[in-house]
Amino acid sequence: MTNKDFGVREGELAVELPARPDAGLYFIGRIHTPWKERKHCPKNARESDAVCTVELDARWRAGLKDVETCSHLVLLYWMDKSSRNLVLQVPGHYGAQHGTFALRSPARPNPIAMSVVRLLRVEGSKLVVIGLDCLDGTPLVDIKPYFASTDSVPEAVVGWHTRHD
Amino acid sequence: MTNKDFGVREGELAVELPARPDAGLYFIGRIHTPWKERKHCPKNARESDAVCTVELDARWRAGLKDVETCSHLVLLYWMDKSSRNLVLQVPGHYGAQHGTFALRSPARPNPIAMSVVRLLRVEGSKLVVIGLDCLDGTPLVDIKPYFASTDSVPEAVVGWHTRHD
Repeated sequence: MTNKDFGVREGELAVELPARPDAGLYFIGRIHTPWKERKHCPKNARESDAVCTVELDARWRAGLKDVETCSHLVLLYWMDKSSRNLVLQVPGHYGAQHGTFALRSPARPNPIAMSVVRLLRVEGSKLVVIGLDCLDGTPLVDIKPYFASTDSVPEAVVGWHTRHD
Repeated sequence: MTNKDFGVREGELAVELPARPDAGLYFIGRIHTPWKERKHCPKNARESDAVCTVELDARWRAGLKDVETCSHLVLLYWMDKSSRNLVLQVPGHYGAQHGTFALRSPARPNPIAMSVVRLLRVEGSKLVVIGLDCLDGTPLVDIKPYFASTDSVPEAVVGWHTRHD
């Protein structure tokens, strides 16, 4: 494991990773943001109204038909600089131990981040969006339409987080 | 490509896939649902209030700490029976052509589905949830806490879909 940016702190727990992956991902494009180093990234997407762009590879471009009619999208992207073996983490800004699956930390067995973004416009194979917090150059994994009927739960609570507020 | 369940219909467009994957995924568990065949699955998760279970592999179990304090979770899972090369699709229940990235169809370059589920309880390494529509045995890829502050957008619209209603 590489401990450069996401090392094991006191209270963290790492496990041995499986010997081999079970499935393969294609990177389908790249995300461009204003942030070139992790320390400059906003802690979460609501902290920033920076305009970011999503460059889809030409191969997949026809798949954007009708995307321009969506006000919001779900983006999945690959946090390729993250540890994958942490099951307990102590995020610096909370200072307490939590399970990986109770966190949105990029360090997780499959470092796929999910962000809901507001779509400003589509320009060819490029999407212009607001609502990202990742590093410039992050690999894109998927684009989905956001359906309020199934994806929006205004009353949802994350109990451990509420207690931190 | 296998055309068994997700074949190319008139109006659909397939592209050549990249020669090799860019990253590897671990399956971290399995989802258990009442549906053994695709034709029995609900068209979307809001059509069903079936209670489903998510079995996390023992290796990752410590990562569930504090998950029980979440009312809702984001689950990512791998639709392992789907074509990955379709960029234009004609879903049977809409009967019109749409781009893959404007659809929640399982057929996409990276067949990762995202569902927001309501967590009923955690039992050891098992989560009991409502809000899934996938086949029994579907491989699990990630569990995330659902934060209303960043994930809930009640006013979001999918224009092409509204016109179908």
